[in-house]
Amino acid sequence: MPAVVTLAVDAMGGDHGLPVTVPAVARILARHDNLHVIMVGEPGALAPELKKEKLDAHPRLSVQAASEVVAMDDPVAVALRQKKDSSMRVAINLVKEGRAQAAVSAGNTGALMAVSRFVLKTLPGVDRPAICTAIPTASGHCHMLDLGANVDSEPEHLLQFAMMGQAVVRAVDGQKSPKVALLNIGEEDIKGNEQIKEAAALMSQAGDLNYVGFVEGNGIFLGDVDVVVCDGFVGNVSLKTMEGVAKMIGGMIREEAGRSWLRKLSGLFALPLLGGLKKRMDPDRYNGASLVGLNGVVVKSHGGTSVEGFASALEVAVLEAERNVPALIRDALAPLE
Amino acid sequence: MPAVVTLAVDAMGGDHGLPVTVPAVARILARHDNLHVIMVGEPGALAPELKKEKLDAHPRLSVQAASEVVAMDDPVAVALRQKKDSSMRVAINLVKEGRAQAAVSAGNTGALMAVSRFVLKTLPGVDRPAICTAIPTASGHCHMLDLGANVDSEPEHLLQFAMMGQAVVRAVDGQKSPKVALLNIGEEDIKGNEQIKEAAALMSQAGDLNYVGFVEGNGIFLGDVDVVVCDGFVGNVSLKTMEGVAKMIGGMIREEAGRSWLRKLSGLFALPLLGGLKKRMDPDRYNGASLVGLNGVVVKSHGGTSVEGFASALEVAVLEAERNVPALIRDALAPLE
Repeated sequence: MPAVVTLAVDAMGGDHGLPVTVPAVARILARHDNLHVIMVGEPGALAPELKKEKLDAHPRLSVQAASEVVAMDDPVAVALRQKKDSSMRVAINLVKEGRAQAAVSAGNTGALMAVSRFVLKTLPGVDRPAICTAIPTASGHCHMLDLGANVDSEPEHLLQFAMMGQAVVRAVDGQKSPKVALLNIGEEDIKGNEQIKEAAALMSQAGDLNYVGFVEGNGIFLGDVDVVVCDGFVGNVSLKTMEGVAKMIGGMIREEAGRSWLRKLSGLFALPLLGGLKKRMDPDRYNGASLVGLNGVVVKSHGGTSVEGFASALEVAVLEAERNVPALIRDALAPLE
Repeated sequence: MPAVVTLAVDAMGGDHGLPVTVPAVARILARHDNLHVIMVGEPGALAPELKKEKLDAHPRLSVQAASEVVAMDDPVAVALRQKKDSSMRVAINLVKEGRAQAAVSAGNTGALMAVSRFVLKTLPGVDRPAICTAIPTASGHCHMLDLGANVDSEPEHLLQFAMMGQAVVRAVDGQKSPKVALLNIGEEDIKGNEQIKEAAALMSQAGDLNYVGFVEGNGIFLGDVDVVVCDGFVGNVSLKTMEGVAKMIGGMIREEAGRSWLRKLSGLFALPLLGGLKKRMDPDRYNGASLVGLNGVVVKSHGGTSVEGFASALEVAVLEAERNVPALIRDALAPLE
């Protein structure tokens, strides 16, 4: 039986807060016997929601009071300097104190990264923590980082992202030698900027890194590589582009299905087909981005996610805590120091 | 009746060459009475293909001999310095000499940009030409640039891209005041790098520019903006990401449809639905990227496109030549000089 894992959950964060976080916690507690959860939030607001989910006397759930909430549009400075008793901050404090192995929040990314970095500090050898998540591909998934924590990354940072991504994939997918690629553009002579060229050189020379070369934007989805490394600006644009295209296609399918009787009928018959597609591309299933490079596991959920989506983010945290990803990253980056 | 337009077509370029370019030219000649086409390539290879399409005695088609072809993997230096009689180069020369108003090629992008820039030169006020194309959105399309001609663009370059994109949309979509947005990432405190912040300031202050602020990667597809401005590295990754996601979804639909009898049946019934979707997302329909900022119209087709796709690229060239987009860009950029 796996060792006990304790998650600190920011119960109040995200667009929906408690109505999403509490039922998701109920689901994940039912799935993992070794899991303990500390729900962090305003006790008066938490109590009725916990009762509704029959969690009010759950033996593996406790409540940690926090009097404030970081709003989705709070500037980082407010989250960091003013709201010191926010549910987000208190959840991360629990990781710092060793009372939890991982914190999960659907609160705003900038604040979560800043508070995590301030409270937990970065691991030795890590200049900048990064945001890393699984991306669906034709044959499964890959991991991509950085997705927005860092703009203007230097070649050394990209190398660190590569080592961290490799450690994550080794830990969560059990792959011994994941293929690591650098995101670039394809034209021969204008192949990448200086930063990319230098990063490629560093990654080629790095020991214990299965660097396989460049991948273009369309190559992310081919299933040929396990880790895609990029600057956070580029990665964020690419990630949001994926979301935008998938959403547009979904919307078009619905529109087309409502356009005529034939298409309505066709849409009805297409349901099993589209259900299969949805399952593979489901944003809920891929919810949960890791803030890697910190002294502790912190997982960021989409702000507007569903119960199932938040449960997916909790699963990511459980897995990374069980495998102790921060220790693996520390070991991986020690030689670079 | 619109004025006569003459296109110089690189008949040999692209993955397929003549079997794609010649039938596409046959289609577009049939569509536009005012169109003349100069097919540039090896006359011996062209003759049988033209005959097959009954173009061998077409009154609005002529052949210009070129003895070389730029290969898809030729380095720019080879295209530029060694293959001076390539079909690509000769087609662009025809624009330079005023014998054609636009050149179209499915040859390699880096070579096409370098040769176009060398032969045609940039317009006054343009430091760097850019690659611009229409992108499907929920409600129609927008234009996006730069898509890969320039990496590490300075704020002044991004402003020039904005002015050029606006001129293109005014000309081809007839919109007087297109909404121009700057591609950025969304987190509050880490909102963009310095280059983006400075570019936003320049664009806010620019006269005659309807700058509407930042857009994120998913915002490209919402139909809220008409021009999306970005650095070429970021734009190329975003464009390729779009292609990758759309292709993956298409592949998954096919896979799901073949998975069981129920799904096979469902896939069959879904055909009209998916047909409607395909029509709206069709890469053929959106084929044809403009190299903007040059003394002449140059349109780049996807290398691996179909006959219909190449015909779309020819349509882009016809429209831009009819509206004289280079003159409009020159007028738009004159105040910046």
